[in-house]
Amino acid sequence: MNNFEFFNPTRIVFGEGQVKAINNLVPESARVLILYGGESARKHGTLDQVMTALGQRHVESFGGIEANPGYSTLMRAVELIREQRLDYLLAVGGGSVIDGTKFIAAAVDCEGDPWEEILVRGAENIRTALPFGTVLTLPATGSEMNTNSVITRYETHEKLAFSSPLVFPEFSILDPTKAYTLPARQLANGVVDAYTHIMEQYLTYPVGARVQDRFAEGLMQTLIEIGPSLLANPDNYELQSNFMWTATLALNGLIGAGVPQDWATHMIGHEITALHGLDHAQTLAIVLPSVMQEQRAVKHDKLLQYADSVWHIEEADEERRIDLAINKTRDFFEQMGVKTRLSDYQIDAEAIPLMVQQLGEHGLTQLGEHGDIDLDKSRKILEASL
Amino acid sequence: MNNFEFFNPTRIVFGEGQVKAINNLVPESARVLILYGGESARKHGTLDQVMTALGQRHVESFGGIEANPGYSTLMRAVELIREQRLDYLLAVGGGSVIDGTKFIAAAVDCEGDPWEEILVRGAENIRTALPFGTVLTLPATGSEMNTNSVITRYETHEKLAFSSPLVFPEFSILDPTKAYTLPARQLANGVVDAYTHIMEQYLTYPVGARVQDRFAEGLMQTLIEIGPSLLANPDNYELQSNFMWTATLALNGLIGAGVPQDWATHMIGHEITALHGLDHAQTLAIVLPSVMQEQRAVKHDKLLQYADSVWHIEEADEERRIDLAINKTRDFFEQMGVKTRLSDYQIDAEAIPLMVQQLGEHGLTQLGEHGDIDLDKSRKILEASL
Repeated sequence: MNNFEFFNPTRIVFGEGQVKAINNLVPESARVLILYGGESARKHGTLDQVMTALGQRHVESFGGIEANPGYSTLMRAVELIREQRLDYLLAVGGGSVIDGTKFIAAAVDCEGDPWEEILVRGAENIRTALPFGTVLTLPATGSEMNTNSVITRYETHEKLAFSSPLVFPEFSILDPTKAYTLPARQLANGVVDAYTHIMEQYLTYPVGARVQDRFAEGLMQTLIEIGPSLLANPDNYELQSNFMWTATLALNGLIGAGVPQDWATHMIGHEITALHGLDHAQTLAIVLPSVMQEQRAVKHDKLLQYADSVWHIEEADEERRIDLAINKTRDFFEQMGVKTRLSDYQIDAEAIPLMVQQLGEHGLTQLGEHGDIDLDKSRKILEASL
Repeated sequence: MNNFEFFNPTRIVFGEGQVKAINNLVPESARVLILYGGESARKHGTLDQVMTALGQRHVESFGGIEANPGYSTLMRAVELIREQRLDYLLAVGGGSVIDGTKFIAAAVDCEGDPWEEILVRGAENIRTALPFGTVLTLPATGSEMNTNSVITRYETHEKLAFSSPLVFPEFSILDPTKAYTLPARQLANGVVDAYTHIMEQYLTYPVGARVQDRFAEGLMQTLIEIGPSLLANPDNYELQSNFMWTATLALNGLIGAGVPQDWATHMIGHEITALHGLDHAQTLAIVLPSVMQEQRAVKHDKLLQYADSVWHIEEADEERRIDLAINKTRDFFEQMGVKTRLSDYQIDAEAIPLMVQQLGEHGLTQLGEHGDIDLDKSRKILEASL
């Protein structure tokens, strides 16, 4: 097991009917900005419940945060906060709204250009951030219990990430019934996203971290068990509650503490979204099987463990066992209705050079747990994804 | 899954050589009291390393905290803190020292008699507590990442528990090499203690909490895998690191969130320690198999899941499968060198009425996840433990 530090002070309030707990979690004197995405939060009554819970507090709201939260949109929220002297943020939505809220929280008191300071120069420049809580409506990214944020600048087709301990949510309300009304595509994306988060922290090389491995395997097995039934029964409380808690634990720091991490799939996937607008999870479903294939030599031991512990594959030949594990992974994503080939999204070989060029421009030339995925290997991974 | 709240702000700093991180974790102006138990912390150099890490800070130390931390001893530390106006505590030891430190932290500013206020009347009376960190030297109780504390009053043979969010350690240093020099008995006790903590939160009745169940099963399987090898090779880093992290995760709130909990084994075991001075883990090894046996009807479904998922028992008859699971549990404790019968400790049937009477005097008349373990059932459990 590698040395590690684990710290996660986000308070999780989990279960049906928990939105009302907001009244005890947000300071009474807070001047609150509610942030949300599309109109589903309003249509399904969540915004009303949040407003009711906030009672007599001063509340403004700001909607329209995109599925990949956009810099210009977020900066309009920053202006509103500055104008209205608001001091507490409440994100109502999924990972996009929460990621956007983290950026806003850090940008409000940022001197200089927030894109440059926070996303290009790096999060160590962040000195303060507004406190915020979240009401999760779309399990997927784990953003409700971590410090990660990914922001898109549509004008320049750039998608960059930051992370800072100053943007831990103070609390997150996880009410599984809020996910009942999600479209199948978003639910499926969420399962693929959570699954890939686990794989990024698990499928590297063994360091004798039995606990982390068993936790990761347990989370993946849970997703495999519940994923297809969940698509068919999105209003099943047991399935949604297990999905929601799994997605949170998939990326709250726990299973990644003390182990190597990969993240090449995410980094390559971000460029596909930035250039072609695919859903984040679609890019993961495309890239992950190819990373497994192209990195099978360096991931050999963990691929065998994965084949055994997660899929219970009984096959004497090791390479064949790895093939089967990769196929099972791809099949699971397809079974969830998420296509796993670039060609399924009308992207062909001609699009690859620009994606590789963008990776280079963003300095992503040493990806993976060994830093051995250079631009040439990224190109091979993308070609294997056609 | 039941509704739950999960909040755990303790910072874990894990790995060999991490004691030096104390310098960044304790405020520079702190007036520190180091608390420890016997002389092993000094003999093995841990106290020196801690002193070095604390640098120029004002430091006092207080040793001699008992294996079951004693009220009178702890109150002497409280006096020292008040006299010297100390404001930061550092526990160096195992669960006993950390439990004692929690009580001390809460008692310093307690008006009135701390035994009455904190342990008898209950922890909601605690309004403030001194901040503290820990350096763990004995993995077992999970006290390094939770708010629980158990204190003994030797004069009256009483052992009572309290819990308060004000006594979360600010940080805990988990350096697995600090456990290399533990006597076999303490190491074995630690494994049994951690295993029983998991069982108290797992072996109840199913509520569809797949994640919590898989995590609990993964922790137990880890202990079963590493326990005997660890006894034989206490200076094996991989084994100790997995044991240390497992023992912490066994009782940091995670696997118990959203599921029913039992704790009858602990409550009955506390009376055995209070009256007969047995090690805490010895009492758990005695009582747990009997609780499984006497409660097999109400724990039926979870016993079968335990037999299958943890022990992989293949046996068609359900009752026989449960018998085997109970036997495997007892055998595991015995394999760790911890005896599982009252008679192994020269305690016979004549001692049982007083233990039952003490349970009654402490109001422990409705134990277990259903509150159905009354004094008569506790008596049966103790009789089955002879």
